[in-house]
Amino acid sequence: MPQEYEIEVAEDNGKFSVVEGANLLETLQDEGYEVPSLCGGMGLCGKCIVKVLAGGQAPTESDRQFFSDEELQEGMRLSCRLEVEDDLLLAIPSLAQGKSEEATAKSELDEQIIDIEPDSGIKRVLLDLEKPGRGDQRADATRITDEFEGCFSLPLGIMNELPGKLRENDFSVTVTVDDTEGRLLSVEGGRSQYESYGMAFDIGTTTVAGYGLDLETGRTLYVDSGENPQGKFGADVVSRIKYARENEDGLDRLQSEIIRTINELVQGFADARDIKRKDIYRATFVGNNIMLHLLAGVDPTHLDQAPYIPGFTDPQRFDAEELGIKINPRGKLVLLPSLAGYVGADVMGGILQTEMHKSDGLNLLVDIGTNGEMALGNQDKMYAASTAAGPAFEGANIEQGMTARAGAISHVSIDDEGNLELEVIKDKRPIGLCGSGIVDTVGELIKAGLIGEKGAIVSGKSALPRPTINPLGNRLIDMDGEKAFWLHVDNNPVFVTQQDVREVQLAKGAIKAGIEILLEEFGATAGDIDRVYLAGAFGNYLRKENIMRIGVLPRIDLDKIVSVGNAAGQGAKLALINRGKMEEVNRIARSVEYIELSFRQDFTEKFMSAMSFPEAEE
Amino acid sequence: MPQEYEIEVAEDNGKFSVVEGANLLETLQDEGYEVPSLCGGMGLCGKCIVKVLAGGQAPTESDRQFFSDEELQEGMRLSCRLEVEDDLLLAIPSLAQGKSEEATAKSELDEQIIDIEPDSGIKRVLLDLEKPGRGDQRADATRITDEFEGCFSLPLGIMNELPGKLRENDFSVTVTVDDTEGRLLSVEGGRSQYESYGMAFDIGTTTVAGYGLDLETGRTLYVDSGENPQGKFGADVVSRIKYARENEDGLDRLQSEIIRTINELVQGFADARDIKRKDIYRATFVGNNIMLHLLAGVDPTHLDQAPYIPGFTDPQRFDAEELGIKINPRGKLVLLPSLAGYVGADVMGGILQTEMHKSDGLNLLVDIGTNGEMALGNQDKMYAASTAAGPAFEGANIEQGMTARAGAISHVSIDDEGNLELEVIKDKRPIGLCGSGIVDTVGELIKAGLIGEKGAIVSGKSALPRPTINPLGNRLIDMDGEKAFWLHVDNNPVFVTQQDVREVQLAKGAIKAGIEILLEEFGATAGDIDRVYLAGAFGNYLRKENIMRIGVLPRIDLDKIVSVGNAAGQGAKLALINRGKMEEVNRIARSVEYIELSFRQDFTEKFMSAMSFPEAEE
Repeated sequence: MPQEYEIEVAEDNGKFSVVEGANLLETLQDEGYEVPSLCGGMGLCGKCIVKVLAGGQAPTESDRQFFSDEELQEGMRLSCRLEVEDDLLLAIPSLAQGKSEEATAKSELDEQIIDIEPDSGIKRVLLDLEKPGRGDQRADATRITDEFEGCFSLPLGIMNELPGKLRENDFSVTVTVDDTEGRLLSVEGGRSQYESYGMAFDIGTTTVAGYGLDLETGRTLYVDSGENPQGKFGADVVSRIKYARENEDGLDRLQSEIIRTINELVQGFADARDIKRKDIYRATFVGNNIMLHLLAGVDPTHLDQAPYIPGFTDPQRFDAEELGIKINPRGKLVLLPSLAGYVGADVMGGILQTEMHKSDGLNLLVDIGTNGEMALGNQDKMYAASTAAGPAFEGANIEQGMTARAGAISHVSIDDEGNLELEVIKDKRPIGLCGSGIVDTVGELIKAGLIGEKGAIVSGKSALPRPTINPLGNRLIDMDGEKAFWLHVDNNPVFVTQQDVREVQLAKGAIKAGIEILLEEFGATAGDIDRVYLAGAFGNYLRKENIMRIGVLPRIDLDKIVSVGNAAGQGAKLALINRGKMEEVNRIARSVEYIELSFRQDFTEKFMSAMSFPEAEE
Repeated sequence: MPQEYEIEVAEDNGKFSVVEGANLLETLQDEGYEVPSLCGGMGLCGKCIVKVLAGGQAPTESDRQFFSDEELQEGMRLSCRLEVEDDLLLAIPSLAQGKSEEATAKSELDEQIIDIEPDSGIKRVLLDLEKPGRGDQRADATRITDEFEGCFSLPLGIMNELPGKLRENDFSVTVTVDDTEGRLLSVEGGRSQYESYGMAFDIGTTTVAGYGLDLETGRTLYVDSGENPQGKFGADVVSRIKYARENEDGLDRLQSEIIRTINELVQGFADARDIKRKDIYRATFVGNNIMLHLLAGVDPTHLDQAPYIPGFTDPQRFDAEELGIKINPRGKLVLLPSLAGYVGADVMGGILQTEMHKSDGLNLLVDIGTNGEMALGNQDKMYAASTAAGPAFEGANIEQGMTARAGAISHVSIDDEGNLELEVIKDKRPIGLCGSGIVDTVGELIKAGLIGEKGAIVSGKSALPRPTINPLGNRLIDMDGEKAFWLHVDNNPVFVTQQDVREVQLAKGAIKAGIEILLEEFGATAGDIDRVYLAGAFGNYLRKENIMRIGVLPRIDLDKIVSVGNAAGQGAKLALINRGKMEEVNRIARSVEYIELSFRQDFTEKFMSAMSFPEAEE
């Protein structure tokens, strides 16, 4: 007889015996515990987590891939990698997932509160209709439209089902109407338990974020994001335009990729909150204008050559089924307005969110993604522009650049003694740098005197203040003739090259030059700026002092700089739940003046001089 | 060697030889003449007509089926039935069809002129757009919407093609806009040669009529009609409602039948005028409300039981593609408003056309189809009602009733000597009676004293004024115990039975009683009526004196009665080409008061007494 051990599950006090060497995941599943696994027990998906509270063994290599030291110490293990060798007391986090996810979500969602009275125009009303009789021969449809003021129309699909539905439910129905459209969206029997929901999407070149909201309360119930799957056809907008131009079905493929992703977020919202997709009645979209073109399937191929003409900039309203977005098929998809080909609905949404267009003081909004977009102004006048800043700040075009995921160096500090400290996302072994990591590195190297004004990495230890004892010296190397700086040394080292620094210079030079031109147009100087809003994930992670040190912005007091997170996404949420805000963003788009930087000779001059690092030692 | 003969075709002076006994149709087709034939030369379809100008033989039996004596004398023959036995000089009417059809159509269309300034809101505009440049970076869509005042939206399908289309055509395009919807309907390259067209449809229970109009000039370019193919599922509205109720896919089948027929009329218009279906931008529909329900696919099954609640009465607007009507997919289908389940858009269209709602004098509109619908009023107030008159006036429920096609007795006269004269459609051998024929027969028999006040056909010759010499006496017979009157005696006799007279009494009694109740509601008497509009094909063919003699209407001067033909269809055309008229018919539907006759006890009383024939001898 093989040795048997006892397993106890904390959640339900379940106990059972297994033979020595049994696979824990299989055992739990055999016993009826719903432990998820996507990879079939290969140790790849990281879903089959258990927490070993008593007993158990040292972590496996797979465990180390998925858990931080702290988590390992708490007993977190992949159950598919665990062979039972003693009695175990387990917790199975996935069993409590409903609760714990809600708890996690709550804290995340608390940040998402938007402070505005909900007024989406979408209403659910319980109607106890008069029943037909000799004194009341009104048509079924009229019986409903009479309940609302103004002109209301019933879509054909609703009309087709109406006579049966009214009678099955004894003329008591819950209807959903869109006041703005004067249109019925649904008729459901009796007192429907469901609410009306909406979603706001921010379609970035790299990342797509989806927010699920309750339209009646305005509360954000769901946040998730994923990679923009169009990335495989090109990392930046220009390469996607190229892909659309050079492949016959290119535009179709780009469109279906993004629609698939949006539908995954829709399904994610529905699953997470146990709602039905048909109860999602509206979706708003922000993004740069090329992303919106690809979403709508509108040819963007005239956008990468002067004079950069987009197919559309005005706000667009489509039926959900026109694009195959799987919310209620009668729900509207609203694309917020853009200003120009390269100043998109994301910037308009950001202005809406920050309310800089209503401010007395002079405000600057800088949204740095794959492109750098910026707006400057106050209640009197507003200007906006964009620069092909290059994707350095998103970690692209950087030798070891990566998106901000586990293993990315996100922060770098060098102290006065030359000691270097790294922050790595998820405390994993570093495998590359994300945008904030590269900005920090360049900033700290400037501070340490290892990068000069023109951006050159110094040659050899001799450049160091106290070369003999400064530990940074060992990190300066020559790689096949190119200078570089080591951040992490092991079998897979992480370093920043001279070329990486050049990429940063190009990106920040373009943004700074753009800001200078906006200031000139406005008739102001950097000193007049009262507030700088840094939008995008970038703004969230960056250290202001290094932003300033590398010179992305003109010289401004650090305390005037505010990170506003995903202001574009917040703008999309505002427009989703409040009609006034939707009109406001349309007004914004009509009133902001667009400055085409690429047509201006002075931009090139400003750009050249803005590439240097003024804070570096000569 | 067989004998050869020479054939000469007048239209093109073509000459060729054929062997004796050759089939003329096959010969002509072999020689390349496009002579149509649907039945494959079986003598059944009547399409392969030739006119033998010299030579030829006596008509065949088939020829006699298809041609009147006059036509036969002119040389008309079916070429498929003709074996060549001598030299022939032929005319082939189908070769000149384009021309001759246009000529026929023209005279038919002349009757269709509607006297109103076209203002459909659908406009075609040639736009020579500003080309993009450094000073003009507007989006492609904006470049177009800026050309129009107010808020214009571009449908997704147009947007998808816009950037390419503008550049292929050097920014010169013809756009079609619907001002009413604030929506672009199409963008075509360059100066498009096509106009914008619309169609108006009158969907009767028995017959569907389609009118094709030029939206810019308001001219009617096409008229055609066909049987409502739903007839095979039931002759009247009640049996179609029953079919929809009792068959799971009943409603779907009824709907697809009517949509197929409408699409045939659409294609007919396109073919006749060599236009493209996509250039037809709007269609309006009138009909009784059940027909409109079946068109829209809305459950009509609550309409055949009290309190007779329809799914809708308000005007409906659908996209053409929603119903699968093959005009421009972005074109709108507009169903004119109904008043109630049994007072449909046809009556509203009739009021619009006659303008009785604007009149000082008191007007009565009677539209007798399968149902009898009527409206009474003036500029101050309007009432409308309907009666299940029964389909006697359309020739249904009559022993030998038939629709008004070749072989139907359409008129009957009996002179003072008792001589009977028949008018038969197309001068063919009579095979039955259509609606006007049955009304005439009953009227003439009343006049001749052969039908009594209560509707009984008199028994035997003795009832006749001068029984011994009156030739009518021989026509009175007893058929298996039922009295009847012979109209035509041969192997297939045509007669009217006592039961047929009863059907006429039911139909006319219901209509007359309905009119009396409307008069009572209005507070007027028959003498106050200034004008009676008889609508429908029925009104066109009926002799006023027999309408009056059988007592369909209260006693009114004959010269107050006006036949207005298809007033409903004319109303649909007005609403199609003029927005003001569309609004007007909507206002009419909201202002007319509906009277439900079946709820009123006084209706039954009035109905009973209205069944008698007051003009008959006691």
